[in-house]
Amino acid sequence: MPKADPFRPTDDDARALAHRLIGQASHGALAVLSDGAPSVTRIALTAGNGVFTTLISDLAGHTNALRLAPEASLLIGEPGKGDPLAHPRMTLQVTARFIDKTDDNATAYLAGQPKAQLYIGFADFHLVRLTPNAALLNAGFGKAYRLTPADLLEKT
Amino acid sequence: MPKADPFRPTDDDARALAHRLIGQASHGALAVLSDGAPSVTRIALTAGNGVFTTLISDLAGHTNALRLAPEASLLIGEPGKGDPLAHPRMTLQVTARFIDKTDDNATAYLAGQPKAQLYIGFADFHLVRLTPNAALLNAGFGKAYRLTPADLLEKT
Repeated sequence: MPKADPFRPTDDDARALAHRLIGQASHGALAVLSDGAPSVTRIALTAGNGVFTTLISDLAGHTNALRLAPEASLLIGEPGKGDPLAHPRMTLQVTARFIDKTDDNATAYLAGQPKAQLYIGFADFHLVRLTPNAALLNAGFGKAYRLTPADLLEKT
Repeated sequence: MPKADPFRPTDDDARALAHRLIGQASHGALAVLSDGAPSVTRIALTAGNGVFTTLISDLAGHTNALRLAPEASLLIGEPGKGDPLAHPRMTLQVTARFIDKTDDNATAYLAGQPKAQLYIGFADFHLVRLTPNAALLNAGFGKAYRLTPADLLEKT
């Protein structure tokens, strides 16, 4: 017997939850490919217009890993009290691109991460844009949804 | 000029912090290799004797990914208030191994995750042991340490 599809049809409630998780995210777990194996680290981030931006240092292994292999994955959504799997979270498949530290890009990043003002000017810190290609929203046991990049954009 | 080594010598304070993070961890971010790209999801876990155990379902993509590629990565350590990067966390490179749901294994897992009693018996849920091969402890800005599996073991 074929397995049941574990994903529910993506509806407005799922999209609204995804938008809430994105809006609340100030950090996430970034998985990169490093020497052929996955490696996961915490990054600070800002989100807007369906994309994420992070500021990462050459001292951290993920930075060079993203230069060599820009396909990465990002987990957002914090667990609260009690069972950690009862809290919603979202896994995004993203493509990383290093962007210039223009005034506009720096201002947009610092709007979400004001403490980064202390080191955003350092030469070994880089702004990296993470653009989602697909997302998997887990809203709790038995409530999983696949989302597209369009689903992640809030209607304006 | 060569870059300065970003890692400090591993000392007893670093090991004590690693033990604390492990002792407090009830969940983590698990990065696996899936169709050649990293994918990161939240898992519940219990820790003891320097290894981690999780209970994962065939409905989740990470489960089959670990069967195909058991080298994975685990991020533990929760951010608190304020700057998420000021809080300690640890990235572990781990090897996954599916273990039998013997009474001993199930009892040990349920000691840390009592709510899993509801579904540990389901045939599509599997206990997986995650054994660290290496760890990187980030205790806050400028405080990074490499740890070995022996460093992760508490002396008894």
